[in-house]
Amino acid sequence: MGWRARGSKIMETLTVNLGDRSYPIHIGDGILPCAGEFLTQVGLRGKIAIVTNPTVAQLYLDPMHEALTRSGFAVTPILLPEGEEQKNLKSLSVIYDRLIGDRFDRRSIILALGGGVVGDLAGFAAATYLRGIPYVQVPTTLLAQVDSSVGGKTGVNHHDGKNLIGAFYQPKLVLIDVSVLRTLPRRELVAGLAEVIKYGIINDPALFGLLEKEMQKIIGLDRELLARIIATSCAIKARVVEKDEREDDYRAVLNFGHTVGHALEAVTGYTRFLHGEAVGVGMVKAAAISMQQGFCDEKDFARVRKLVEKACLPVDIPSAVRMQDLVQCMEVDKKSGSGKIKFVMCAGIGKTRFQWLTPEEILGALGTSRA
Amino acid sequence: MGWRARGSKIMETLTVNLGDRSYPIHIGDGILPCAGEFLTQVGLRGKIAIVTNPTVAQLYLDPMHEALTRSGFAVTPILLPEGEEQKNLKSLSVIYDRLIGDRFDRRSIILALGGGVVGDLAGFAAATYLRGIPYVQVPTTLLAQVDSSVGGKTGVNHHDGKNLIGAFYQPKLVLIDVSVLRTLPRRELVAGLAEVIKYGIINDPALFGLLEKEMQKIIGLDRELLARIIATSCAIKARVVEKDEREDDYRAVLNFGHTVGHALEAVTGYTRFLHGEAVGVGMVKAAAISMQQGFCDEKDFARVRKLVEKACLPVDIPSAVRMQDLVQCMEVDKKSGSGKIKFVMCAGIGKTRFQWLTPEEILGALGTSRA
Repeated sequence: MGWRARGSKIMETLTVNLGDRSYPIHIGDGILPCAGEFLTQVGLRGKIAIVTNPTVAQLYLDPMHEALTRSGFAVTPILLPEGEEQKNLKSLSVIYDRLIGDRFDRRSIILALGGGVVGDLAGFAAATYLRGIPYVQVPTTLLAQVDSSVGGKTGVNHHDGKNLIGAFYQPKLVLIDVSVLRTLPRRELVAGLAEVIKYGIINDPALFGLLEKEMQKIIGLDRELLARIIATSCAIKARVVEKDEREDDYRAVLNFGHTVGHALEAVTGYTRFLHGEAVGVGMVKAAAISMQQGFCDEKDFARVRKLVEKACLPVDIPSAVRMQDLVQCMEVDKKSGSGKIKFVMCAGIGKTRFQWLTPEEILGALGTSRA
Repeated sequence: MGWRARGSKIMETLTVNLGDRSYPIHIGDGILPCAGEFLTQVGLRGKIAIVTNPTVAQLYLDPMHEALTRSGFAVTPILLPEGEEQKNLKSLSVIYDRLIGDRFDRRSIILALGGGVVGDLAGFAAATYLRGIPYVQVPTTLLAQVDSSVGGKTGVNHHDGKNLIGAFYQPKLVLIDVSVLRTLPRRELVAGLAEVIKYGIINDPALFGLLEKEMQKIIGLDRELLARIIATSCAIKARVVEKDEREDDYRAVLNFGHTVGHALEAVTGYTRFLHGEAVGVGMVKAAAISMQQGFCDEKDFARVRKLVEKACLPVDIPSAVRMQDLVQCMEVDKKSGSGKIKFVMCAGIGKTRFQWLTPEEILGALGTSRA
């Protein structure tokens, strides 16, 4: 890493090292207007489609359009309706039709301007149009900035499940402007913080400590602190992805708190909790199970619970949720074939261990932790 | 290479060397019943979907189903309607639905049993289901055996153009049984020979000479000769793909005869010529242009024309086709940005050179060659 000034702007650049698929992540305050230069730096030019949704478009499409046009790009805006339920093959077809209509070729570019839905859709379109064209991630939610925009997971949902169709396909560039977070609803900002807390728990006691100390300022949108925790989060994710790009094994460490979290989202019909909120609950439960299984001590558990609370994230499974239903939603590990669930344990703040648990063991642990 | 006996069967194994994406191609006579063993050898097991069409299914689904079941695989047959017009997103959805319905996971397998349409569709489904699962090519047409099953090009058509949506995604194994060619219509066998002739022209004077000498026996389905020319073709394609997997540059050498060929298919509405037939005409025209541009001599051109004729492939552009329309269908090179067409020249049998030609230059050359 290494901070440097770019005009008056604080900026940091990280690299995701994946051989010929390596790419930079620029993180800064007010760097959106420099988008054209950043794209040019990595050799991109010509036609570019900005994939976004109406809400984000109203805020940032014009400046982005202008920034790219100023650097000589020919811009095609593609607006998709908002919401997770739009992340499907139909929206994908809308993108293909526009790219074909505007005669995009193998050197043309897709730029994803938005949150995770836009990024996943646009990335998958880039992965599959003409067998792959370059794409750029410009995430506008905290969740997308610290998680989905880095690592090359792209895809769409199927009516029977989330992210069932997709590809691993890395962007050419990720451009993170913390200044856009001022327009993000507070509830979404807080949901994004769940993933930041996760990085602290799985990999970085110093990040965890910083969050404990500065959570109020962070929620108050202190941009320097935001840039710092985002850069640290992206760096951790980059190192994990470098070790195991296609999630053959180790990348699953990023699922800390997600086994319970995903199940909680599913049993509540994806309406009650934002993803990050469910992960908040999931991390507290994962820490509780880790403690019960002897991987961490009570102090670690208490710190996790307290930090999640401090971030104004939920920590409890609603009493209306039946534990049995919740555990049934958890995914049995397909690789071990043992009928067990691959669980990411907290082995003290900053450390993890994989542990295979039976649904019954999880049910037992959750029951206790609730009481 | 290296021939070896497998029971009573002649068999040869090649390798496509692409690092951790390397895979074997087995070519033999009557080796379909050994499919289960070959899959097991490369570490595959569990659930497998056989993607095929009704015609191929009637001939080979039962023995393939049996061979795989015998080796412990759990088989899901997926029959898709026949024809190039079925190579679309709708057929892809049919495959996804079945995979999800049968709870295929990241280790489950797709096996493409059929020609190019089945292979491209099944391969693209494998590339994108759960962000990529293993797949196996079992091509049943000569064209698919020597061309589309090797090299990892997968995809579907868009109503505005062929193969506009797809991915580079390598199979785990290609299994080529020459004995299935006995059930292939003669017209399709001959169309496949166009690509074999192409490999001779671009890379292998010995293959070209063998074809000149033995064309009658090959069309008469001499299996040893068929196995030999298929193995040689696959070996050449493998070397090209190893050099340039994603067609950044050199892989375009495989397009010899295809610039005119594709255009001829398009102006005749994809109904008059099979792909290989159009490539037959295209190779003769490409050789003529190569001669006119001084890349090869008249003798080379005459040998190309004579061999294409010997294979019972067409050599002339129908008089009803307007040359202007044909040239308009050719694709201007997107990388050079020069408005020129990247043309693969024959620089003597076994050698190629890339040359950028303006549409006018091609029009001039084609006009002359017709007269």
